Amino acid sequence: MENLENSTDCKETVSPLNNSGSTVNSTVSGYDGKAMGFVLVHAGAGYHSESKAKEYKHVCKRACQRAVDRLRAGGLALEAVTSALMELEDSPFTNAGTGSNLNLSGEIECDASIMDGKSLNYGAVGALSGIKNPVLVARRLLSETQKGKLSAGRIPPCFLVGKGAEQWAISHGIPACPTEKMTTKFSLSGYKRNKRKMELAEQVETKRKRQLCGHENDFGCLEPVGDILVAGEENNSACLDTVGVVVVDREGNVAAAVSSGGLAMKHPGRVGQAAHYGCGCWAENARDVSLYSTAVSTSGSGEHLIRTMLARECSTAMQAENAHQALLEAMQNKFISSPFLAGEDCVLGGVIVLRCCTCGEAQRSEDIQALLVEFLWSHTTESMCVGYMSAQDSKARTHISRLPPGAVAGQSLAIEGGVCRLGTVSD
Amino acid sequence: MENLENSTDCKETVSPLNNSGSTVNSTVSGYDGKAMGFVLVHAGAGYHSESKAKEYKHVCKRACQRAVDRLRAGGLALEAVTSALMELEDSPFTNAGTGSNLNLSGEIECDASIMDGKSLNYGAVGALSGIKNPVLVARRLLSETQKGKLSAGRIPPCFLVGKGAEQWAISHGIPACPTEKMTTKFSLSGYKRNKRKMELAEQVETKRKRQLCGHENDFGCLEPVGDILVAGEENNSACLDTVGVVVVDREGNVAAAVSSGGLAMKHPGRVGQAAHYGCGCWAENARDVSLYSTAVSTSGSGEHLIRTMLARECSTAMQAENAHQALLEAMQNKFISSPFLAGEDCVLGGVIVLRCCTCGEAQRSEDIQALLVEFLWSHTTESMCVGYMSAQDSKARTHISRLPPGAVAGQSLAIEGGVCRLGTVSD
Repeated sequence: MENLENSTDCKETVSPLNNSGSTVNSTVSGYDGKAMGFVLVHAGAGYHSESKAKEYKHVCKRACQRAVDRLRAGGLALEAVTSALMELEDSPFTNAGTGSNLNLSGEIECDASIMDGKSLNYGAVGALSGIKNPVLVARRLLSETQKGKLSAGRIPPCFLVGKGAEQWAISHGIPACPTEKMTTKFSLSGYKRNKRKMELAEQVETKRKRQLCGHENDFGCLEPVGDILVAGEENNSACLDTVGVVVVDREGNVAAAVSSGGLAMKHPGRVGQAAHYGCGCWAENARDVSLYSTAVSTSGSGEHLIRTMLARECSTAMQAENAHQALLEAMQNKFISSPFLAGEDCVLGGVIVLRCCTCGEAQRSEDIQALLVEFLWSHTTESMCVGYMSAQDSKARTHISRLPPGAVAGQSLAIEGGVCRLGTVSD
Repeated sequence: MENLENSTDCKETVSPLNNSGSTVNSTVSGYDGKAMGFVLVHAGAGYHSESKAKEYKHVCKRACQRAVDRLRAGGLALEAVTSALMELEDSPFTNAGTGSNLNLSGEIECDASIMDGKSLNYGAVGALSGIKNPVLVARRLLSETQKGKLSAGRIPPCFLVGKGAEQWAISHGIPACPTEKMTTKFSLSGYKRNKRKMELAEQVETKRKRQLCGHENDFGCLEPVGDILVAGEENNSACLDTVGVVVVDREGNVAAAVSSGGLAMKHPGRVGQAAHYGCGCWAENARDVSLYSTAVSTSGSGEHLIRTMLARECSTAMQAENAHQALLEAMQNKFISSPFLAGEDCVLGGVIVLRCCTCGEAQRSEDIQALLVEFLWSHTTESMCVGYMSAQDSKARTHISRLPPGAVAGQSLAIEGGVCRLGTVSD
């Protein structure tokens, strides 16, 4: 196990993770040790209160275990990534699937997408209501794409939204789920608090507007009057967003997925980065000019992640020699200081990244397959909760990464990660 | 006026346009000649029958005129691009706005997006019903983004879909339009023919499935059984898609927009490239590392254009020295032979591209502002109908570009274009 080097020539906040990751030869009791693969998950970039830390870590742990179970059962990256993401969606503590933020009308509308690094196929759903696991619909869209054309030569869709997406899911055997079942007491109480807060904010704005009467410009008088709305279960546990998973399997295939309930009090029909190609997740196996396989999943302010196309940008950056340095520069130059977000003084987001390549050993011996996996996370939000596990580990490790005291969220970043060498005797 | 050079070292079909474009000094009677700017539009990459050629050219001409009217009235690129696109949407002959393809349920659901090269702001709508000009909603979303945060610090949406998008539009003063008013006798008769064709295709598939009973694999037995569905007014005028506009204004700002009724007989809720960031349109003013301002709009098979992110790829390619060669290589390597479309033997699409930079003359004299505008189009479809005009021209020029006889649509490409030097005495 090696820790990634810290970069010292940058102003960013960089706190390295100690003793993270796992080594090649760890085996699990009762398990034959032949499986190979690695999973990295996150339960949102935002603010994770100390009081709820246990819950977030626990769901990350379970999600990792789900992915590893699939890898051990012979599943490939795409299956493992779906299983882990479903676990994250099912948790009432995450803003995805069950427990999602409610929109302005008090309804749940979810975004999710998935990408397969081997086929480069992609599936996504946006503003989807009434389905317990949105990622399952995205996954099914991806599978249907791989089956070729529909009747009369029609190209199958890779992105469906709203009522049409719900109908498609049901007609493809994915059961409907009443919104009430996906709404938790936390999301409901958060909605009520937010509604009061908005009403208050709008009263202040109306008053201000009257005072400014005669001085209105084309842009009207709306200005930010408060901090970001609460998204979860308590007032100080704000802005939890998207969850995500990245996986590499025994064949070295990567896959990535993302799922989100979106911003609290969003307008109905609003689609965030989780359903946007290149923005919510990205996965590309190594090929020709690309030495590394890469998988990325993002979280944070959807509109900022869309306009910067952060998932794809991070994936592209990962072809540089030094993964840690490349991610740090991507987060700084392609996100915080992106020309696409000029004028934004608070750019909130986070990413998890995997990159892997075949180790030197594999080239020396045909009997040994080995993968070098570098795993990283970086965020400009107060905190980000992550979990990771190799198929040879006995249990997942979890961690809540935080900006150091004094660092300003939206302007500084934290970056951490590790390296893991995976190897197994081939069958 | 210069014509772009032909590339002879490629296997692609390249047919240069003769006598296209316009020169600096042409002036219009009754017009003071001070306005500057250029517009390039298209009415879809697909198959344009000779019998309807006049109609397609005519709508392109009107769209160019609308953009130029705005430029002459002092409007900037964003206004001009919106005006031209509305004209294309209003034509019953194009697959956008009025006259859009009907989906499986016989309804119209439109996608549209717009991007401002100056602010890099973006707005998009997907699967939108009941609004006459979808681009107007995309434009309004873009404007609202520029006003800053909503009440209580909420980030304004840049992408809305379905019923939520329709409600947002109406609440922002854009009038509702009954679907019946947007449905033409052509789109309705096309829908009826397609429905019969699909029923027939499905009968054949059911029969084939029965014959193959016992030999079914995981992917079932669905195979393409027919050619692509008709999308328009007559059986041999198939596959018309998205319309688009790119504009550069007197200040050298670029803007791009795109609008589409989507594939005929698409599943309700399907969103195509026209509503996908980086896929349907792209506009970026020159800055720092980018010498050229670029604007791109795409048309064709939405899913292929999404997975290749063709608009952004073409924009990036346009920073190379030779625009014509760069577009040819982008269309070949990032579209026809893209690893993201491996296994697809028929890749249908088209692009219009503008790139511009300040001319040498401008650097020598403060009194003269001059822009060198290179305008190109390229398509792998049978044909593509384009129009273009500078603010100093008396009328637009139009052209239906076609693959040469024997070239295979989806595997070959045509590329054409011109160069236009725009100059005006500064006020």
